Amino acid sequence: MVHPLTPLLAPRSIAVIGASADPSRIGGVALDHLRREGFPGSVYPVHPERHEVLGYRCYASIEALPEVPDVAVIALRAPSVLPMLERCAALGVPAAVVYAAGFAEAGAQGAALQSALQAFAQRTGMKISGPNCLGSANIGARAYTTFAGVFRDAPSESGAGRIGILTQSGNVCTALYELLRRMNVGVSHFVNTGNEAAIEFSDYLEYLADDPQTQCVVGYVEQLRDGQRFVRAALEFAAQDKLLVIYKAGETVKGSEAVRSHTAALAGDLSLYRAVFRQLNVVEAEDFTQMADLAWLSGFSRRSGGTRLAVVSVSGAMGAVLADRLTLAGLELPDLPAEVQQALRANIPDYGMVANPVDITGNVVNASAAVRAIMEELAATPALDVVVVNAPGYLLDRMADVLIDVSRKSGRLFVVVDTGSAGARTRLITGGVPVFDDFGRAVRALAPYCRWLAQAPSTRRWAELRKTLDSDASSGRGPVAEPIEGRDEHQIKRWLAGFGVPAVQEAVATDADAAALAAQRIGFPVALKVLSADIAHKTEVGGVRLGLTDAQQVRAAFRDIMASIREKAPLATVSGALVQKQSRGAVELIVGVTVDPVFGQALTVGLGGVLTELYKDVTHRLLPVDDALADEMLRELRAFPLLDGFRGAPKADIRAACRAIAGIAAAAHAQRTAIAQIEVNPLHVLAEGVIVIDALVLAAADGNTTEERR
Amino acid sequence: MVHPLTPLLAPRSIAVIGASADPSRIGGVALDHLRREGFPGSVYPVHPERHEVLGYRCYASIEALPEVPDVAVIALRAPSVLPMLERCAALGVPAAVVYAAGFAEAGAQGAALQSALQAFAQRTGMKISGPNCLGSANIGARAYTTFAGVFRDAPSESGAGRIGILTQSGNVCTALYELLRRMNVGVSHFVNTGNEAAIEFSDYLEYLADDPQTQCVVGYVEQLRDGQRFVRAALEFAAQDKLLVIYKAGETVKGSEAVRSHTAALAGDLSLYRAVFRQLNVVEAEDFTQMADLAWLSGFSRRSGGTRLAVVSVSGAMGAVLADRLTLAGLELPDLPAEVQQALRANIPDYGMVANPVDITGNVVNASAAVRAIMEELAATPALDVVVVNAPGYLLDRMADVLIDVSRKSGRLFVVVDTGSAGARTRLITGGVPVFDDFGRAVRALAPYCRWLAQAPSTRRWAELRKTLDSDASSGRGPVAEPIEGRDEHQIKRWLAGFGVPAVQEAVATDADAAALAAQRIGFPVALKVLSADIAHKTEVGGVRLGLTDAQQVRAAFRDIMASIREKAPLATVSGALVQKQSRGAVELIVGVTVDPVFGQALTVGLGGVLTELYKDVTHRLLPVDDALADEMLRELRAFPLLDGFRGAPKADIRAACRAIAGIAAAAHAQRTAIAQIEVNPLHVLAEGVIVIDALVLAAADGNTTEERR
Repeated sequence: MVHPLTPLLAPRSIAVIGASADPSRIGGVALDHLRREGFPGSVYPVHPERHEVLGYRCYASIEALPEVPDVAVIALRAPSVLPMLERCAALGVPAAVVYAAGFAEAGAQGAALQSALQAFAQRTGMKISGPNCLGSANIGARAYTTFAGVFRDAPSESGAGRIGILTQSGNVCTALYELLRRMNVGVSHFVNTGNEAAIEFSDYLEYLADDPQTQCVVGYVEQLRDGQRFVRAALEFAAQDKLLVIYKAGETVKGSEAVRSHTAALAGDLSLYRAVFRQLNVVEAEDFTQMADLAWLSGFSRRSGGTRLAVVSVSGAMGAVLADRLTLAGLELPDLPAEVQQALRANIPDYGMVANPVDITGNVVNASAAVRAIMEELAATPALDVVVVNAPGYLLDRMADVLIDVSRKSGRLFVVVDTGSAGARTRLITGGVPVFDDFGRAVRALAPYCRWLAQAPSTRRWAELRKTLDSDASSGRGPVAEPIEGRDEHQIKRWLAGFGVPAVQEAVATDADAAALAAQRIGFPVALKVLSADIAHKTEVGGVRLGLTDAQQVRAAFRDIMASIREKAPLATVSGALVQKQSRGAVELIVGVTVDPVFGQALTVGLGGVLTELYKDVTHRLLPVDDALADEMLRELRAFPLLDGFRGAPKADIRAACRAIAGIAAAAHAQRTAIAQIEVNPLHVLAEGVIVIDALVLAAADGNTTEERR
Repeated sequence: MVHPLTPLLAPRSIAVIGASADPSRIGGVALDHLRREGFPGSVYPVHPERHEVLGYRCYASIEALPEVPDVAVIALRAPSVLPMLERCAALGVPAAVVYAAGFAEAGAQGAALQSALQAFAQRTGMKISGPNCLGSANIGARAYTTFAGVFRDAPSESGAGRIGILTQSGNVCTALYELLRRMNVGVSHFVNTGNEAAIEFSDYLEYLADDPQTQCVVGYVEQLRDGQRFVRAALEFAAQDKLLVIYKAGETVKGSEAVRSHTAALAGDLSLYRAVFRQLNVVEAEDFTQMADLAWLSGFSRRSGGTRLAVVSVSGAMGAVLADRLTLAGLELPDLPAEVQQALRANIPDYGMVANPVDITGNVVNASAAVRAIMEELAATPALDVVVVNAPGYLLDRMADVLIDVSRKSGRLFVVVDTGSAGARTRLITGGVPVFDDFGRAVRALAPYCRWLAQAPSTRRWAELRKTLDSDASSGRGPVAEPIEGRDEHQIKRWLAGFGVPAVQEAVATDADAAALAAQRIGFPVALKVLSADIAHKTEVGGVRLGLTDAQQVRAAFRDIMASIREKAPLATVSGALVQKQSRGAVELIVGVTVDPVFGQALTVGLGGVLTELYKDVTHRLLPVDDALADEMLRELRAFPLLDGFRGAPKADIRAACRAIAGIAAAAHAQRTAIAQIEVNPLHVLAEGVIVIDALVLAAADGNTTEERR
């Protein structure tokens, strides 16, 4: 099946409306590129007065062309765009590129123009790139619709390559292209999405996932408009073992202010973006050089790779520094097995090191057979995934042939860090051994690349996620969905219990004596809490009393609470009070599901309490979340040791916690159209089992109050 | 006064013992450097059989030289070193360089050899570099005692410079030199310290602090042997406004294992190193490129610099990314004052941005007068310290002259990040405007550099530190030191109270009835704790009961505790029990002073409780610590908001907490020869005042138990 964006991104014929004969003007640049690069398809400049432009025959109007072009490049000012697009649509032109600024980024009038453009695209189905975009380039097809001068000023020397550049900013698009070009890394597609009135980032991403030329995409995102489409596209990258690297802008207030002003797009919740990236094996980049390095590294891809590294140096100190940096970046340097150390020792003198990092010493480098034996041993060690070799250039020159040969024969990824100026750099690189000239740069690229390699191309988990996306049917392992609105805390707990999430032992009491009786049945100490579907913040209205140790205290507390509610929340409908057993020695978790405007339902897990908020020790996932994923989330918390018997404390029931987290996720999914938020806070994790102490649900219509509570 | 290391590092005459005519052999390299670079002093090769070496007259023995050389380079194997040094000493040679390996890094026999060398140096006062070192180079004086081939293979093109390279690893020394050379940054001194049998890192550092040629040192440290000397030298750097950049190896287990094996030096406690670096305005580096970049940046030093930056870009997206990265790195991008924004708006169109980041838009770049007006406005804004300008190369070329001119005239530091390939790079750099070609690299260098600039060259605090170092006299604002050994918890609290650190209300009781009586006087609830100088871990032997609410409970608790102690700590001398008032709603701090083997007494402050340990939220300083420094420490804690009225909670008495912290520091200082450790845990910080709940002192002889407790 031909992808719907094919006419736009791989056109056989290109019309340029508003053509200019000046290669430096916006209507001339693309034509100049097409001519210079020798686009094999048809090129149709359109201009009312000219007969020829840059060697191409020029037509007076779009209607005068000898055929309907695949794509019309509209090099006109904003007000002329829509009328021209209407004429194109009338002819059946399937795709267009709109350069003009003056749309959503330019005040109310521009926004109206963009809405009209969007409506036009929806009505006609025309695939429109932009507005306010640089256009794109398909290097392999020599098809240019872009007015980016970089293809003229800094033409690629390596020709078409395997890297797609896809950005929401034209300047970033150009900057990434220049970086890759300087590193001699070939590009397949260059796409700037601009204001995304009709086609958005994830649409292009989907195309690039399908494109056989493109094996890696470096992307720049200010905001995604359709998170679910992004998830699908990213899953496709994962399934095809293609690397997707994204820089997400707007991490800080200053950054997101600039982005907002720039594209009129609200930057989303970065922590959720980050969680989604991790969940989908999308690499989140820190800067452009790292993106380019990752793209370059992906050309050396070995599926044998992973996060277990050996460091080989000719210097204890250099090995130590590299080991420090790689370990801090999250990679592992496993101790080498005893038999491997023994084998290495046969070729490494006493003052060298055979553990990990390995210090082969400078003298050994002169003995080519010894270097080969060492590298072959490391290439064959199953406890390793990647071998990182550091030496100053002149020593690397002596090892280069062995490294190339062992790497090729073993299929293991060898990476070199040259702390001098090796003459053999190019030879190593063309021989399949990437060479960095800087520790920091090497580590910043290797760490995420190795983590990416360590993930299987398609895990069960991703399959689950795809299945959920594909299915609109109501699901869940609990009871069928019933209306959730208007339920009080007790009812919500009973509903959650239906999903296998047990609640604390509690009883509803409607008067002081009943409360005291219930407390005696439950056992002291108890907590007493007002019960009302109308009151979300019980403590603020004096609706909670803790640590009640006898019947008299319970009765008094009941009366106090009711008096306080009458005063502070006179309009609330009160169904009574909850008498709850107070438990001790539990680890408190907070578990919540919210609806993200971009990605939909997402689960958050954190340790309960005030410090967790200060340390921001929480983790997120898109639904669905099963027990295994819940376990992964818990282990990501820095406070996880508290659950795992920290400092001799008894271990908490982690399996029960995972079941409860998955159950809360399933409950939220079952009610996904009705619920804006579920928050279980706290969930007490005991030595055996878990109990929900408090739970809150906000119905979809209450969405706004979600924000207030944060 | 001539520095004692002058004969070693700035010799007028150099003898090479074990001279070789082969410039690639260890006895020939230094001679080759001296000849090639034209060392103006005397050079004396020494070899029993040769008459001439590399053009220099050769002598049969050290005794045959026509004068006593400033330094003797010993290019002999380890066993021959000491006998030769004895002969040099007999002649009065003041300094020597020992290349040979086979000392402390090579087993027991080598260690013995190193001890002998150390004793020799102490006895004779000879300044001996090494053993197991590369030697050194004084580029300005053209004096080479090193066998590092790098000066031949990659001679400096820029000649002598202002950067000192000082490392405990020869390979790192060479790697740093190569990096700086590639960046065309001139070096003053190249020093590899090796095994440091006689002269150690801080001795060289002291020399470089005095050296007028050297304005910045990049150092590599595995372990410091004399922390106090390092502190003095670093203070000297600060006083002279010289930048000191250190890479400290051994941050991770893997790294420190490699370092240990490499130099037989135990890597110290990195968190204390890090705190000391911060306290002394020493920049801790993350990698070698960052070190080289910082050294290079220091050549553009403006004392007007600081951490408040404006970012100027021609693209909203690029500005946003740069703003993100700079902010995440800890720099500030203040909002520009309204009048500045107004002034900028006169030259920046509506679709650009005048806040911060500033987006001047690509079109403005063509208007040189507008660019000048914008840059002059930013150069004159007092709310800013540094202006960072980003643009692709071809636009930078158009702005270069203006940037150079405004930077020069205003004295403000302008830094450029070129995301293209500006032709004007060299012009900008020689014009005083540093240019980076990568966001990440720029941010990693700029952030620590701006923080360094923001510190005044010599603050009152550093003066305090120096005074303390210089004074051996007992000091402190509390009572005169008395013996601390054998004091129990109650006595320790009384002693601390003498330093203005108040304790919780408590009483000593020797029987159950007295305890109950004391509790009634103090008011319930109370805690009861066994009182014994012999029991450090009261809870572990059942020596603590909390939350006692009436006299009966107190009596029972007293009996329980004593029974438990009789069983679990039968040998402990028990002075009774402490009855303590239990306070509520306090923020708990832990405050401790330990004696670091390298740096001496250091104070640690953290939030009390189990989570703080998990999140490693503590901070350290060398003594002395006054109220202001204590305040700085508290504000470094991520949990600081808990003290400052987090989420509407009442503010804790931060001033009282600072007074108490400084008091604990003063107490520890007053008893510095007697005490291995003080730990106040917890210190309760209340809405008004603070109280010590528990305190522990370990006497110096108990030093080892300190380790066990950690």
